[in-house]
Amino acid sequence: VTAGRPTAALLVTGQELLLGLVADANTRCLARDLDALGIDLRRVGIVGDGHDEIVTGLRELAGHDLVITSGGLGPTHDDRTVAAVAEVAGAELVLDEELLAQIAAITAEYARRRGADPALNRDGDRKQALVPRGATAIPPAGTAPGLLLAHGDGHVLVLPGPPREFAAVWRSALELAPLRALRARAGPLLRHTLRVYGAGEPAVARAFAAAGGDGGGTRTTICARLLEVEVTVRAEPERQAALDGLIAGLREQLGDAVYAEDERPLAEHVLAALRARGLRLAVGESCTAGLVAARLADIPGASDVLLGGVIAYANEVKRSLLGVSEAILAEHGAVSEPVARAMALGVRQSLGVDAALAITGIAGPSGGTAEKPVGTVWIALHLRDNANTVLLRLWGDRTEIRQRAAQGALNLLRRALIAEG
Amino acid sequence: VTAGRPTAALLVTGQELLLGLVADANTRCLARDLDALGIDLRRVGIVGDGHDEIVTGLRELAGHDLVITSGGLGPTHDDRTVAAVAEVAGAELVLDEELLAQIAAITAEYARRRGADPALNRDGDRKQALVPRGATAIPPAGTAPGLLLAHGDGHVLVLPGPPREFAAVWRSALELAPLRALRARAGPLLRHTLRVYGAGEPAVARAFAAAGGDGGGTRTTICARLLEVEVTVRAEPERQAALDGLIAGLREQLGDAVYAEDERPLAEHVLAALRARGLRLAVGESCTAGLVAARLADIPGASDVLLGGVIAYANEVKRSLLGVSEAILAEHGAVSEPVARAMALGVRQSLGVDAALAITGIAGPSGGTAEKPVGTVWIALHLRDNANTVLLRLWGDRTEIRQRAAQGALNLLRRALIAEG
Repeated sequence: VTAGRPTAALLVTGQELLLGLVADANTRCLARDLDALGIDLRRVGIVGDGHDEIVTGLRELAGHDLVITSGGLGPTHDDRTVAAVAEVAGAELVLDEELLAQIAAITAEYARRRGADPALNRDGDRKQALVPRGATAIPPAGTAPGLLLAHGDGHVLVLPGPPREFAAVWRSALELAPLRALRARAGPLLRHTLRVYGAGEPAVARAFAAAGGDGGGTRTTICARLLEVEVTVRAEPERQAALDGLIAGLREQLGDAVYAEDERPLAEHVLAALRARGLRLAVGESCTAGLVAARLADIPGASDVLLGGVIAYANEVKRSLLGVSEAILAEHGAVSEPVARAMALGVRQSLGVDAALAITGIAGPSGGTAEKPVGTVWIALHLRDNANTVLLRLWGDRTEIRQRAAQGALNLLRRALIAEG
Repeated sequence: VTAGRPTAALLVTGQELLLGLVADANTRCLARDLDALGIDLRRVGIVGDGHDEIVTGLRELAGHDLVITSGGLGPTHDDRTVAAVAEVAGAELVLDEELLAQIAAITAEYARRRGADPALNRDGDRKQALVPRGATAIPPAGTAPGLLLAHGDGHVLVLPGPPREFAAVWRSALELAPLRALRARAGPLLRHTLRVYGAGEPAVARAFAAAGGDGGGTRTTICARLLEVEVTVRAEPERQAALDGLIAGLREQLGDAVYAEDERPLAEHVLAALRARGLRLAVGESCTAGLVAARLADIPGASDVLLGGVIAYANEVKRSLLGVSEAILAEHGAVSEPVARAMALGVRQSLGVDAALAITGIAGPSGGTAEKPVGTVWIALHLRDNANTVLLRLWGDRTEIRQRAAQGALNLLRRALIAEG
């Protein structure tokens, strides 16, 4: 909690959230943005679709500079957020003719694509064009417009629930005069993130203490993820020197376990490092079964680096497509250093690349032994003329072990590229 | 909202959630369980780590049969949930010696594995063994115990924040007498889920109306996911006939767009159908780059069905490993029906299976043309002696298009298996 900074609260509406049918995806997106803008998100409430629930939720969250709502803007009677906001603000609902024309044009186009009758949308269009008197409508990113309304000393911002629409209308809202004024009042907060791989949360906490901690007025959060730890240091602008000093200290303590100082995923860093060196990558995946390639391919532009690979889930594919010999498989077992090494070599030769990663492991829940328990994962890397392997002993359920193995493979590649210089 | 059913509320604590550093993973897990038990989750609040915030949050959520908290149970001073609960309940904090011994044994084992001094944990152990007088401690799944405490006419259940620990301690809590009593009072709710692929939300809404809607006392939620729509019909036990009638009507309206009537993922259904027929599967993936195989491999036991495949991200891999001819690639382009077909045939022959799926598409953001816009995806299936293709025109960002393409591929396989009989 930062004295003097504007504050915000979020009310998420939707019975489907309280039934566990979907997970709330908007809070995190909004929270990151607000923090970067220097606006304190103090509270989030999740309520159902009922009018009274929404009204109660809004009343409890009153008193913030900005109260944001998510959801309940659809064309049907059980979308009640606008009516609830109007009641709390004491504003009557009026039809916005210009907005109605915008919405009708959008829903008519949807109807046309589906071959449906646009007249069927008429009631829904009108319902979505009802706005509290005095509110500013924000053009829809789907069919639901956003709304910004002055209330008390602050504003209520009404956003649609579907995450893509929520994000788009939120971005538009940020350009409206009242939000520009709020942002100006907030002023940016200093924020610096270190992303750490290969050091656990306790080790990072010790590094943080050794680097002087938050004594200089910074505020640090240490957050464990899959196989990484994210350290976020935040400070008021006048604490720039303290923030810089702490970051420098953390870098010194953590060394090359720090793999990034931005929010780009590890896959994106790896692709960039390969691209810079003119290298192309192929993968041979057993237990991860395509996860490493899929993560890389999720980054736009991956195709100039990622060639492809082989999903060698069964041993017969390790033999037939990757040339792993029956003898190695029989002697060492599929989850072993020699097999990982042979897989990397096989995919490297088969695809003719200078960088090849291979992963073989036991994701569980069955298949573990005393010698090779569930979570045992061998990763091999061939990079130009060097081969490199690592043994991970992972924990968690099947999904987590596979995700962590993929992350571990990308990190092995990252470190090898750094070591090249 | 169901009159007469027990109600619950959840308070999630953690500044990291309000900063957007992590997403709340516990609400959905808990919400599903509560709904299945017939307990109405009415509200969720998310607050930071401050004592006053937690106290205020607890006070606002009072009046429910069960108030659950998540997070804030760690060994350090900024984990304040137990103290806040004690204050709200008017109970003093006392040291639970038996619990202390349990916790100390756990943290000593962690310290031993890391080669650290267990004495360093002493303060933290004691902090975590402080409980409000009269509370029942629930053994930790990590280091933090859960707590159950009577308060007013209901109970407060304190659970740790890390999702795995949250779920484990929650399961233990369900066996305590007060929660058994609450479950008995609730009685199970009838719930039936239809999962629909290939019909949009409006079409499902029309089918719902045509099947009679909720007129018989059911409560239906229609929820759009990636490429599927989930229809959940809930009812009190005495409405069994109405629920059965509505489900039957929906099945009739939606036909074989209904792919499942349980919560298992599509990949699990596809694996089961292949297993039942003694078929093994291989994949050739371009734009999805391993997603289809990775999704299948996420299901325990996938290895008896999924053999593996080829990630043919670049055209040279389509040629070299899948035998797609240069001529076909040149004439039709990589994203085309003939190439998808040739990829499926190639992987089928290369891996010697009776079922092969291939996917080639334009995931964007660049690479689209007027004729083949971003989102154009061809999927081909070879199943025994039959070949089958489908063209998807998908929307969304790169990640969504790739996820939807993977889902579409699994669904093509599902329908072909059904059509076999």
